[in-house]
Amino acid sequence: MARRAGDVEGGHGFARRWLGIDIGGTKIALVVGDAAGRVLAQHRRPFAGTSDPTRDVSRLIEDARALLAQAGVAPGALAAVGVAAPGPLDPGTGRVLGPPNLPGWSDVPIARVLGAALGAPVLLENDANAAALAEARFGAGRGARDVVYLTMSTGVGAGIVLDGRVNRGAACMAGEIGHAPVEWEGRACRCGRRGCLEAYVGGAAWGERLRATTPETSAVLSLAAARERIAPEHVVEAARHGDAFARAELAAFVEWLARGIVSLAFLLAPEVVVLGTIASAAGETLCFEPLRRRVAARLWPGMAERMRIVPAALGTELPLLAALCVAQAEGDGPACTEQPA
Amino acid sequence: MARRAGDVEGGHGFARRWLGIDIGGTKIALVVGDAAGRVLAQHRRPFAGTSDPTRDVSRLIEDARALLAQAGVAPGALAAVGVAAPGPLDPGTGRVLGPPNLPGWSDVPIARVLGAALGAPVLLENDANAAALAEARFGAGRGARDVVYLTMSTGVGAGIVLDGRVNRGAACMAGEIGHAPVEWEGRACRCGRRGCLEAYVGGAAWGERLRATTPETSAVLSLAAARERIAPEHVVEAARHGDAFARAELAAFVEWLARGIVSLAFLLAPEVVVLGTIASAAGETLCFEPLRRRVAARLWPGMAERMRIVPAALGTELPLLAALCVAQAEGDGPACTEQPA
Repeated sequence: MARRAGDVEGGHGFARRWLGIDIGGTKIALVVGDAAGRVLAQHRRPFAGTSDPTRDVSRLIEDARALLAQAGVAPGALAAVGVAAPGPLDPGTGRVLGPPNLPGWSDVPIARVLGAALGAPVLLENDANAAALAEARFGAGRGARDVVYLTMSTGVGAGIVLDGRVNRGAACMAGEIGHAPVEWEGRACRCGRRGCLEAYVGGAAWGERLRATTPETSAVLSLAAARERIAPEHVVEAARHGDAFARAELAAFVEWLARGIVSLAFLLAPEVVVLGTIASAAGETLCFEPLRRRVAARLWPGMAERMRIVPAALGTELPLLAALCVAQAEGDGPACTEQPA
Repeated sequence: MARRAGDVEGGHGFARRWLGIDIGGTKIALVVGDAAGRVLAQHRRPFAGTSDPTRDVSRLIEDARALLAQAGVAPGALAAVGVAAPGPLDPGTGRVLGPPNLPGWSDVPIARVLGAALGAPVLLENDANAAALAEARFGAGRGARDVVYLTMSTGVGAGIVLDGRVNRGAACMAGEIGHAPVEWEGRACRCGRRGCLEAYVGGAAWGERLRATTPETSAVLSLAAARERIAPEHVVEAARHGDAFARAELAAFVEWLARGIVSLAFLLAPEVVVLGTIASAAGETLCFEPLRRRVAARLWPGMAERMRIVPAALGTELPLLAALCVAQAEGDGPACTEQPA
C-alpha cells in the first residue's frame, strides 16, 4: 500500500496500474496493483454464472470501473488487464472457449470486449498457469528459475513456468499432467482414457471413490455427516485425528502423486514443485514429508535435493496475485493461437 | 558454400565464423560455419579416447587451428566455439564431468582450455540438447516453436527446445525421459531404478535382452552372425524381411516408446517430437506409423494432430550442425551452474 503518491513510472506523469480479474466457478475477484505487484485495491464477490456471458461480462466491466475509480487510477494509467479463467481458453485470441465450470461461456471474446470497455490491452491465461506465475514470482517458487505449480482440486493440472515465462505448448495443451498415465491400463478417468494421474488423486475421482468405499466406522463419514457429502477434505481432517481408513487413503494419494512427480522430475527437473489445494491442506506430516521420501527413492542421487516439493504459499491471495501476474506478463513468449475444436 | 567473399557482418571488415566441435565416444567432428549455419569446412576423424584428456584436447586444438586456416578464417573472425559432448557436463562452467563414453575425462575444463587457445568464447552443451537445437533449427523441427528430440541409441534422452532455447532444468538434469517410469515396478534399469523407458527401448538394454531371447530360427541371429553380436539394428533389418520374432520385438518397442511419448505430450505438448537412431532406422512402416497410432489412441482428440512424430532429418550432418548450433547459441537462457556430485 506504500508509495501511492509520487509513484511515477514511464514518464507519463501518473502511476501505472494493472488490473487483475480472476474468474472462478463460484466467485470473481478483481484487483488493482502497481508495478511491484502490490495490491492497492480489491473486490471479491460470489459468481454463480448466469449462462449469459454478455451479461456476466457487462457486470464485470462495471465492477472493474468501480474498482479503478476507488483506487484512483487516472484515465490512461491502466497499463494492462489480466484475466485468469478456467480452461480451455485461447491466450492468443483472448477467447474463453467453454470451460465446464462456466456454463454458457462458449467462445467468449473476453479480451476484446474488456479491452474496448477499459481502454487497455487484455491478457488471458488459464488459472493453473496464472497461479504458477504468481507462486513463481511472489510465493513458494520465489527466486527459482523453473517452477511447476500443480493444481490439486477437482482436477489436476500443471502450470509450467520456465525462466519466468509460462510454457504453453502446442495449442496451449501443455501442463495436462493430470492425464499423464501413472498406470497404463489403470482406473478409468473422466477424460475417457485410463490410468491418468487425475483418476487417482483428482478431487472429483477421489471423492466419488470415497463415497463408495468409506467404511461406516470411519471418521470420514461422521465428519461429512452424510455419505453423499464425503469429499477429500474429510479424509485430511479424519487422518489428522488418526482415523485408519483416512490415513491409508492419504498414503495411497501420496503414492500416486509421487509417480506423477517422478515423471515430471526426469523430464523437466524443475527447481520447485508447488502443490495446491488438497496436498496443501494435508500439510507436512500427512503429505509433504512422505511424498518427498517416495519421490527421492525413485530419483537419482542428487536430483531430489535439487527439486523442492512445497505447498503453495500465497493462500487466499493466490487468485488475486495470479490475475495481477497475468496483467503484467506482457512481453511473455508468444501465445499459442490455435486451439483444439 | 555460397557467399564466401564479401560476407561481412558486424562491421569488423571480415566475415564472422563459428567453430563447432562434436566429441563422440568413437569419433570427433569439427566444422566451420557462417551466421546462416552453412558449413564452410569440416573435418572428421576416429577418436578412441586416450584416457589422457590433456593430450586429447591438445590434439583437438591442433585440428581446430588447421581447419580454421583451411577455411580462411581471419584472426579475430572466430565469433564463438561450440562443443557438443556426452553428458554429464556443466554448460555453466564449461566442464565435461566424466561421461561413461569418454574414459578418463573426469572434470575437464574444456571451455577454458579451448577458449584460451582459440581466442573465442566456448559454449558447451550435451549431445542430446545440441542435436535438439540442430533439428529444431535446420531439420525435422524447422519452423516449430517447441521441439523435443529423443536420442534413441545406447540410452534414451531428450533435448527439449522451447521457443528456440534449450531447457536444461535444475542442475541441467532436464530431459532424462529415458528414466521416466513406463511401468512403475517394471524391468530393472542399469540406472538402478525400475521400469524406466530406457530399460525397454534403450539400445543397451534391448540388445542384452535380444542376445538372451532371440530364437535360433530367427533371421536376427543369422544377420548378426553370432549371438553375442546381436543388436537392435539386426531386429530392424530382420523385420524388413518379415521375420516374425523381429516384428514382435519392434511392435513391443513401439508400444513402450508410445508410453513415454504420451507422458511427454500431456506434460509439454511439443509441436514436434523428433526421434533419432533406432526409431529413425526402423522407418515409417515399422516404427512411425504404428507409433503415431498408439500415441493418438491415448491422447485427447485434437492433441495428436498438433504433435508431429517424425524421424530426425539431418542424417550424418546432425553432429556437425549440432555443434555449430551450440556455437551460435550465445545469448541463450542462463545455463545451470551447479551439478550433482
